[in-house]
Amino acid sequence: MSNKPKNAISPTREEDYPEWYQQVIKAADLAEVSPVRGCMVIKPWGYSIWENMQQVLDRMFKATGHENAYFPLFIPLSFLQKEADHVEGFAKECAVVTHHRLEPGPDGKLVPAGELDEPLIVRPTSETIIGSMFARWVESYRDLPILINQWANVVRWELRTRLFLRTAEFLWQEGHTAHATEVEAREETRRMLEVYADFAENWLAVPVIQGEKTAAERFPGAVVTYAIEAMMQDRKALQAGTSHFLGQNFSQAQNIKFQDAQGGESFAWTTSWGVSTRLVGALVMAHSDDDGLIVPPRLAPRQMVILPIYRGPDDRASVLPYCESLKKDLEQIDFAGGKIRVQIDDRDIRGGEKNWQHIKRGVPLRLEVGPKDLAKDSIFVGRRDTGEKSSVPRAELLATAVQRLDEIQRHLFDRALQLRESHSRRVDSLDELQAWFAPRNEDKPEIHGGFAYCHFIDDPLVNDWLRERKLTVRCIPLSGEEEPGACLLTGRPSSKRCIVAKAY
Amino acid sequence: MSNKPKNAISPTREEDYPEWYQQVIKAADLAEVSPVRGCMVIKPWGYSIWENMQQVLDRMFKATGHENAYFPLFIPLSFLQKEADHVEGFAKECAVVTHHRLEPGPDGKLVPAGELDEPLIVRPTSETIIGSMFARWVESYRDLPILINQWANVVRWELRTRLFLRTAEFLWQEGHTAHATEVEAREETRRMLEVYADFAENWLAVPVIQGEKTAAERFPGAVVTYAIEAMMQDRKALQAGTSHFLGQNFSQAQNIKFQDAQGGESFAWTTSWGVSTRLVGALVMAHSDDDGLIVPPRLAPRQMVILPIYRGPDDRASVLPYCESLKKDLEQIDFAGGKIRVQIDDRDIRGGEKNWQHIKRGVPLRLEVGPKDLAKDSIFVGRRDTGEKSSVPRAELLATAVQRLDEIQRHLFDRALQLRESHSRRVDSLDELQAWFAPRNEDKPEIHGGFAYCHFIDDPLVNDWLRERKLTVRCIPLSGEEEPGACLLTGRPSSKRCIVAKAY
Repeated sequence: MSNKPKNAISPTREEDYPEWYQQVIKAADLAEVSPVRGCMVIKPWGYSIWENMQQVLDRMFKATGHENAYFPLFIPLSFLQKEADHVEGFAKECAVVTHHRLEPGPDGKLVPAGELDEPLIVRPTSETIIGSMFARWVESYRDLPILINQWANVVRWELRTRLFLRTAEFLWQEGHTAHATEVEAREETRRMLEVYADFAENWLAVPVIQGEKTAAERFPGAVVTYAIEAMMQDRKALQAGTSHFLGQNFSQAQNIKFQDAQGGESFAWTTSWGVSTRLVGALVMAHSDDDGLIVPPRLAPRQMVILPIYRGPDDRASVLPYCESLKKDLEQIDFAGGKIRVQIDDRDIRGGEKNWQHIKRGVPLRLEVGPKDLAKDSIFVGRRDTGEKSSVPRAELLATAVQRLDEIQRHLFDRALQLRESHSRRVDSLDELQAWFAPRNEDKPEIHGGFAYCHFIDDPLVNDWLRERKLTVRCIPLSGEEEPGACLLTGRPSSKRCIVAKAY
Repeated sequence: MSNKPKNAISPTREEDYPEWYQQVIKAADLAEVSPVRGCMVIKPWGYSIWENMQQVLDRMFKATGHENAYFPLFIPLSFLQKEADHVEGFAKECAVVTHHRLEPGPDGKLVPAGELDEPLIVRPTSETIIGSMFARWVESYRDLPILINQWANVVRWELRTRLFLRTAEFLWQEGHTAHATEVEAREETRRMLEVYADFAENWLAVPVIQGEKTAAERFPGAVVTYAIEAMMQDRKALQAGTSHFLGQNFSQAQNIKFQDAQGGESFAWTTSWGVSTRLVGALVMAHSDDDGLIVPPRLAPRQMVILPIYRGPDDRASVLPYCESLKKDLEQIDFAGGKIRVQIDDRDIRGGEKNWQHIKRGVPLRLEVGPKDLAKDSIFVGRRDTGEKSSVPRAELLATAVQRLDEIQRHLFDRALQLRESHSRRVDSLDELQAWFAPRNEDKPEIHGGFAYCHFIDDPLVNDWLRERKLTVRCIPLSGEEEPGACLLTGRPSSKRCIVAKAY
């Protein structure tokens, strides 16, 4: 009779999904809550996953012609106000800088001093400040397009936060582009949505649906907002990236004008698009299991960890050099745009505990090497995603290393796709919709439907009805076929199904 | 009689060094002043140089055992106050967040609302917030050392700003480490100073002096501050990086305690170290000339630009493919931890103008290819640093590409070293010191001495005397030999010469 839990993470996904999520992050040492309200600390293992994401995305942005630049953290209040919808969208969640120094107050304690003439907003997003620079840079159509990306921190004051998914400060990239024609700007918006979908599916191993947002979910100031939507293991939707066609709204507000080829004057057409550290949350929720994190090999800080096992006092002298030479050989192998990343964990702690640490951190392959393995010139390989374990001759391991990692990557994607497919369906009445999303069990509200493909029109009535039931229209899928139908609520004609789901 | 200036940059260094600096930045399109007071916009060419610096430094930090992480942008006022010297050092230059939303005021305009219980300071540096996390993470000596680095933006409110050198917001990295023993922490402080010196000399091509700061120039809260100091072309000193031994000051303030191997409880020993986008300013001021920027090849966004030249309408069809194949060949060649970065500039603008753009941007080698070069299978090579031009057979260019880039890199370093050596001297009286730093010409105050090696004690009297003459003690060089002497001002004994200079 042991008290040891069967799984490394308690509670399990079935028992309490939101709490399981927090515990996976803790066990994998990805991040933690900071003493600053709403702000998180991203710890080395979590930050390393973000760095890998950055590297891949940065390569993709540059391959599509974008350059990185950096703009001020602060946005003057008057800038934010130039676009009416924009400021309205962010007014409730702004960190406002009002003073520029501290001085001793009446009781000797330091208090804010040096009040600013105009308050500064810590950027919640940078359309307005970047737009004001574009206005300076653009004179003629020859100056267009401008294709800029910025890696930065942003702040949107949040009261109810959750690590990676919703924090007051988060890290992201924001693309900002200006074009001479509407067609070009619309193409850019779709191109970057494709880049995000490509990244999500081929690197994050998370299948996504590309779709258009309804008016209620549109970015404040945008004409069209597209998003990629993914299903997490609790069947909720997570918006993993957005791309906005801003029309001429911001160029008119910021006066981004240019002389066209005919000598006339026009406002530029702009776009913006972004993904954030939220993707780390998506990675955790899409792939992890009741033993902790599972990282897709292509984004793993380390794809393999070598665990030397010493049975007797003399083993180290033979086992460790073997591990080092194995590491060296593995690190020669190309994988995912670099080389395979390998660590030897030679710390003097119990083997079981050590093994579990790497399981909880989601290292794709664990390679155990003890005296017996050495004698056979074999390695005992543990695969994180399936739990399979087997002894593999060294030469074979080297020859199949890439294939093994690719297989894990593919398996994670397939598993996530399978989950989504088996929890998606067409729903053709309000009753059916409510029944499908009704909690299966009062204690486990997260066990519900999934993605419901329904006919709804884009109308506040619909949004209100859905919001009362904790549902939202996630998007109108771009790949969806035209299909005449009637809005389930209003009966008005609808030409395409949208996806209704609970969402993060 | 032409009005065309002889040089691309006006004024020249001799005419007006500070204005020349601004004009070089403008001509190279590195950065510009933003509409937000004190904040700059780093444009793609400037940001790309910073990215290259980041990549190299990041590799060096990881090679010395550090991991990246990310901590909150905001620091609660109470945290900053825990270390008395620290808060005093930064109180006068803090951006203070006091509200967390905006709402319509009496006249309908948006005003700050939702006042915070405790003001938040936009981080000017992160010792206190990171220290508070270390306190959570450290229990036993086995948890030490903690070796963390953060890439981040910081804000120190500045009224008189200068692009890259002094801006309210800047980008930097800040290393923060905690150790079980004083010896280890002191070693870490020196190790990272060495890393900075290595980077400055071997990548930035700027010779630096490693030295210890006097009390007046010490980081607020540090026990010892080391810095690397470089001489700019106007003979002023620029502090290019600092490394601080913090003793137990911050661990006591933040309660970073651990159980040692003997079971006793001790405070950890901490360090911090940082370099910033100021390094881009150092690069500009150390190497550029009256034709604009010169970028050391190892940090250049592009080491070479290929300029196709079309004499007649049919030339494009033959010249462009030749350029593309040349580019492909050059891009196969290893250089500075990557491959040579090459651009073909095929824009339809005048050849002279195009050539000057790349000169002003400091591209190390310009490769012109016209029909005549094609016929000879030769390339007309223009070298940025010396202005040399010559026709080089293609095979020879490919064979000597790395050597050519290395030569430019070495030449820039040697030139900067030569400048420093010829403007450094021992100074043994106050009169001599004043004479040496007296402006040669009232209109050109920047033409003055350089680095004066003198005997001064570390005392406020000395600092005041020097400050009145716009001089400072830059550092006490670590490599300086012990040499008994007397303080030039107080006559008190001094065992080592310090460097006195005007400084940025």
